[in-house]
Amino acid sequence: MNDIITLNHGSGGKITHDLISGLFLKHFKNEKLNNLSDATVIEISSGQISFTTDGYVVEPIFFPGGNIGKLAVCGTVNDLAVSGAIPKYLSVSFIIEEGLSLKELEEIVKSMAAEAKFAGVEIVTGDTKVVNKGKCDKLFITTSGIGFIKKEFADIGIGSKVRNGDKIILNGTLGDHSIAILSSRESLKFETSIQSDCASLNHLIQKALDICPDISFMRDATRGGLGTVACELASKINLGIYLNEETIPVKESVQGICELFGFDPLFLANEGKLMMVVPPEKSDKILKILQSDKYGKEAAIIGEVTNENKSKVVINTISGGKRLLDMPAGAQLPRIC
Amino acid sequence: MNDIITLNHGSGGKITHDLISGLFLKHFKNEKLNNLSDATVIEISSGQISFTTDGYVVEPIFFPGGNIGKLAVCGTVNDLAVSGAIPKYLSVSFIIEEGLSLKELEEIVKSMAAEAKFAGVEIVTGDTKVVNKGKCDKLFITTSGIGFIKKEFADIGIGSKVRNGDKIILNGTLGDHSIAILSSRESLKFETSIQSDCASLNHLIQKALDICPDISFMRDATRGGLGTVACELASKINLGIYLNEETIPVKESVQGICELFGFDPLFLANEGKLMMVVPPEKSDKILKILQSDKYGKEAAIIGEVTNENKSKVVINTISGGKRLLDMPAGAQLPRIC
Repeated sequence: MNDIITLNHGSGGKITHDLISGLFLKHFKNEKLNNLSDATVIEISSGQISFTTDGYVVEPIFFPGGNIGKLAVCGTVNDLAVSGAIPKYLSVSFIIEEGLSLKELEEIVKSMAAEAKFAGVEIVTGDTKVVNKGKCDKLFITTSGIGFIKKEFADIGIGSKVRNGDKIILNGTLGDHSIAILSSRESLKFETSIQSDCASLNHLIQKALDICPDISFMRDATRGGLGTVACELASKINLGIYLNEETIPVKESVQGICELFGFDPLFLANEGKLMMVVPPEKSDKILKILQSDKYGKEAAIIGEVTNENKSKVVINTISGGKRLLDMPAGAQLPRIC
Repeated sequence: MNDIITLNHGSGGKITHDLISGLFLKHFKNEKLNNLSDATVIEISSGQISFTTDGYVVEPIFFPGGNIGKLAVCGTVNDLAVSGAIPKYLSVSFIIEEGLSLKELEEIVKSMAAEAKFAGVEIVTGDTKVVNKGKCDKLFITTSGIGFIKKEFADIGIGSKVRNGDKIILNGTLGDHSIAILSSRESLKFETSIQSDCASLNHLIQKALDICPDISFMRDATRGGLGTVACELASKINLGIYLNEETIPVKESVQGICELFGFDPLFLANEGKLMMVVPPEKSDKILKILQSDKYGKEAAIIGEVTNENKSKVVINTISGGKRLLDMPAGAQLPRIC
């Protein structure tokens, strides 16, 4: 019975303490977490911070290219980074189903620690709850994050700096994460070499901000995909967004599966992709710096901001037509993040 | 079908947006949340912040004296307040089971908004996920919080300021929350007038800090109860803790149910109780100020810090004996928070 999570692991008693020190502290080890108080005190040198939260309920919890833990760290790191912040501190809340194997939990915790190390963030506070078998689906994780943000970047996630003529850049292929998840579902398993693109993009973003501090807008294209990010941005600005489908990178294998299932890659979730809106005179320079990074090799300019079709997204399709892009009502795929 | 949560509410598409603006924004309304970017930018005037997170999986989600939403706000406010911070900003992550009624969700959201208003905090960022029916239990909430903390209070949650002779104060009766939850469980319903003590204690704590900035230690006695807080503190300091059972307030009705079920009120969860360790010369003054507050009427001095029994908790029982208090291995009651 020692190799699975029991309700007692969430009791707050000795068994909880053993789990915290034997597993979480062991891998997340840092001075702040070691205090084990319910709140962690953090020194703030800059005058502004960025604050974010996300729940992760991906099914299955292990998938090609990652697991729910890596996903949670990357997702929160990316939410901070696209807001213009330097991600610094994460909190982690685990909701665990009774019966989860400790081995699986440790593998997840290890990959969270590794991803946090890569991203340069510390996991400084956390919580663990256990619910009875059948009352959650193995493991849900909610991560919150704090980053330091310079005053000049405070509007980068909002869209108020977007101007007519700005170029739209995407850092790589769409849909990989969704298709990787789909391929690993019990009910539907199929053979594919597609891996989730799950990655912390903060170092990539930092490189771009270093050479071009006047990036107009950034947003990671997660749930809802690139299409939703574009539609949301358009709805907030008094300008139009034009996308050129031909230039949008999609893997052939992903495109094939999308055709089979009737998915539109524009609206599939990604976990390592972001849309950047940049002043036109800087676009080539930014493109080059993105392409020089592991997570931006296939970066491309995929469209621009226009004075036409205000608050709308128009896409020039590969077949030669034009269509208005509209946010879908519901999901193509539930529980992909 | 419009009156229940569906998977589409968690899709990130239009239906998600309608839920966010029609429900969450409507009740949580504030300038920061209205931006609807994935991260919120916050101005920090002080040099230190306190950061905390907690997941809530209480079952049932409505109980006498509160619901899961009120509990989540109070819990995070209290974790910040006992760390010596002034709670300021909260994030909220909802994981919702398909089929939850929108009416119930709105009632929960409303009470979160009301409690946030009372506590003086803003809910500035959030996330919503929906999982298939049977994959979670109605609703799980994870709240994270940020508070501003003065340098002189930074150690108040750690225990390093505790000295021999310090008095131990409790702000009211033990076990009310656990027994209220127990009484409302489907499998076990019984008639009782006991209400959860679920409350935001930050204003009470502020009053105490105002008259006595040199409080040695504070911790809210939630999961694991007062007994666990005392044992944890004792294990961290090279001093003993002595508790006098006779002085520990427990409602007669709670005591009766505890005897029936074999529970020890010392280890039952509370959601509006905290243990304070204070310099002896200030204890009467602090006791008075606590007793003058709605949430401290039954506050009492329940013990003291001693040079004997180092790193241990000794309790003088009502029956006249002495016993060593030990942290229980597991839980008396699962899913009480």
